[in-house]
Amino acid sequence: MSGFNVAAATEVADTLLVLFLALLAAKLGDELFKRIGQPGIVGEILAGVLVGPSVLGLVEADEVLEVFAELGVVFLLFWVGLETKLSDLRDVGRLALLVGVLGVALPLLGGLGIGIVRGDETATVVFIGAALVATSVGITSAVMIDLGVLDRRASRTVLGAAVVDDVLALLLLSIAAGLAAEGEVDVVGVAVTLALAIAFLSFFALGGTRLLQRRPRLLHAPRFSESPLLPAVILCLGLAAFAAQIGLAAIIGAFLAGMVVAETRDQHPIEDEVAPLYAFFPPFFFVFIGTEVDLGALASAGALALLALVTAVAIVTKFIGAYIGARGLGRGDAAFVAVAMVPRGEVGIIVASIGAMTGVVGERLFAVIVGMSILTTLIVPPLLRRLAPRLADAEPEPATVP
Amino acid sequence: MSGFNVAAATEVADTLLVLFLALLAAKLGDELFKRIGQPGIVGEILAGVLVGPSVLGLVEADEVLEVFAELGVVFLLFWVGLETKLSDLRDVGRLALLVGVLGVALPLLGGLGIGIVRGDETATVVFIGAALVATSVGITSAVMIDLGVLDRRASRTVLGAAVVDDVLALLLLSIAAGLAAEGEVDVVGVAVTLALAIAFLSFFALGGTRLLQRRPRLLHAPRFSESPLLPAVILCLGLAAFAAQIGLAAIIGAFLAGMVVAETRDQHPIEDEVAPLYAFFPPFFFVFIGTEVDLGALASAGALALLALVTAVAIVTKFIGAYIGARGLGRGDAAFVAVAMVPRGEVGIIVASIGAMTGVVGERLFAVIVGMSILTTLIVPPLLRRLAPRLADAEPEPATVP
Repeated sequence: MSGFNVAAATEVADTLLVLFLALLAAKLGDELFKRIGQPGIVGEILAGVLVGPSVLGLVEADEVLEVFAELGVVFLLFWVGLETKLSDLRDVGRLALLVGVLGVALPLLGGLGIGIVRGDETATVVFIGAALVATSVGITSAVMIDLGVLDRRASRTVLGAAVVDDVLALLLLSIAAGLAAEGEVDVVGVAVTLALAIAFLSFFALGGTRLLQRRPRLLHAPRFSESPLLPAVILCLGLAAFAAQIGLAAIIGAFLAGMVVAETRDQHPIEDEVAPLYAFFPPFFFVFIGTEVDLGALASAGALALLALVTAVAIVTKFIGAYIGARGLGRGDAAFVAVAMVPRGEVGIIVASIGAMTGVVGERLFAVIVGMSILTTLIVPPLLRRLAPRLADAEPEPATVP
Repeated sequence: MSGFNVAAATEVADTLLVLFLALLAAKLGDELFKRIGQPGIVGEILAGVLVGPSVLGLVEADEVLEVFAELGVVFLLFWVGLETKLSDLRDVGRLALLVGVLGVALPLLGGLGIGIVRGDETATVVFIGAALVATSVGITSAVMIDLGVLDRRASRTVLGAAVVDDVLALLLLSIAAGLAAEGEVDVVGVAVTLALAIAFLSFFALGGTRLLQRRPRLLHAPRFSESPLLPAVILCLGLAAFAAQIGLAAIIGAFLAGMVVAETRDQHPIEDEVAPLYAFFPPFFFVFIGTEVDLGALASAGALALLALVTAVAIVTKFIGAYIGARGLGRGDAAFVAVAMVPRGEVGIIVASIGAMTGVVGERLFAVIVGMSILTTLIVPPLLRRLAPRLADAEPEPATVP
């Protein structure tokens, strides 16, 4: 009859408490790590481990926290999109494609290898491969924003490669899920998913920006809205929701929305107004990742050995694949790109979770993949900070006639 | 094992879609109503009715939407708190107490009267009374912000009276819930709840602001944080969660947090940064209220007659009670205060829901109380807009030495 009832009212009160604790933990972790000269994001994730079920048990990853985490990474990539022009991505297109494809191929082979050596069944093998493929561009983007290097050629290559990566990961995940559910690959389903994804990307990456270039006041017609914030946020949520509905990552939609808005003349006021949303939501994303770790299931020599192996393979294969792809940028930039592609973050966790749900990824393997996702995420921010000062300068903006 | 699984991942994708639709509907309703010269809030609530289960069925009031709605009214009252100084409230203290008490007493008698005439059992009678008592200061606050009259003496009286109102409503709701569950009043429980509520209000209203007056840089120590936004938001969520945990409305905690922050020298930068959160979340609150209406259960002559009676009693008793209390302000201001106290909004809906859960409020009575809550909410914004120009001017700020 009605959604609002006693149980729900108490739930809402409890949810406020969880959101408060998660945000407080994130902020304290961030501050602590910044004071000891470390990246704040690492502190936020470890704060999530601390308050999560593995240690203090104050914050559980329930549906509401997941939605806040998702909006966190959605606004993160929306912000990145706002800072990115489509032409910037087009300039690095071929390079990004190479980085994306090679950065997927080698980890896939590594993951399949681990599964085959372990003697897992086919569906499990494919899931390990898919989990090693995934790149969490959210983590890298946050670090690149902090370091102020979003405008560099290397950073744009990372963003472009992340889009390629996500399309390939979607393909793999469709295959893996088909294998787990039916024992065979649903070729038509996979093809339809891919076609939808590519059509969506092409339409909005090309059509959306052109539309707004022709009608620059669409988001800010004087009689339509006092502030361009809500129209921009609605576009962001709409494209994110649509991307998620067709199986892509929601953040790809948010990234496209950001790029579309960046073409309008309202870019700067929108950036100012999105900034607080960008400050508010992403901490939930980092804490959420931390709460997913299951220290209990990792507390055996066998599990730790497997974790070490999977993590090492995940790092080495992604680094080498992406480095080869990015060679053309020169050593320093190629190393930055290769390291930036390493974090598996929430994407590895999602793949593992789908495998766990369908029963082909056991509890220990699940904990190992989550552990690998978090370890690959934790080592990257400090490395990127060391590599950032050696990056090639941003190209000077061509003079524009107003 | 893990919160993140296939079902949850699909749920998150669906939730993004619901949030997108809710925000889009709210924005369109707001724009449409502003264009035809009506208050935007009314448009947002009616948009909620339209997309809700009663008409289009696009948006259901699930847990996530409820949390967003709650944060909407939390940030709304946090904003109001930021604009309010404790001394302003103290100045209208006696008047606010009078408005609060009389604005509770008359609707209570009216509600009890309706129940007794209908021949309801005692617990049901008390629930009808409690539902007629509640005031939704969220709605009124949003209108007062839009009209730019938050600094007037009448507006401050409304805010103070709302706090009094909420404490009395808590008392009544404790009694009603005790009657429904046990058949008798849990005197000790009611007393403890009240004592906690009053201790909380006194401590933060007095202690909190004094602490920050003495240590004005607490929220913005140079090494502690780049921006004062997150510490302020954490304080807001913390006090809101604590208020909700002890049975008060979360918005009372948010309002206190806003007043505490308003005492710091960071008030203005924080206002600028909170503004986008204030733009983003409240539309979910207005849409949520609209989705709660059940047009089907009201589609009979008997239900409509009861709705008309309950709504008329709700309006007349609250107006007369509050008007008598506010007489000292002069006719124009007293009328503004009395109208501003009329909306029952989400508070009436919550009371009805608790009654429905415990089985003492039937489906038809539930729909009637929800309908009354929404009708009392819809008529107020246009009336306040007519009354606002006649309000006494804001008192001139005393000259301050920097």
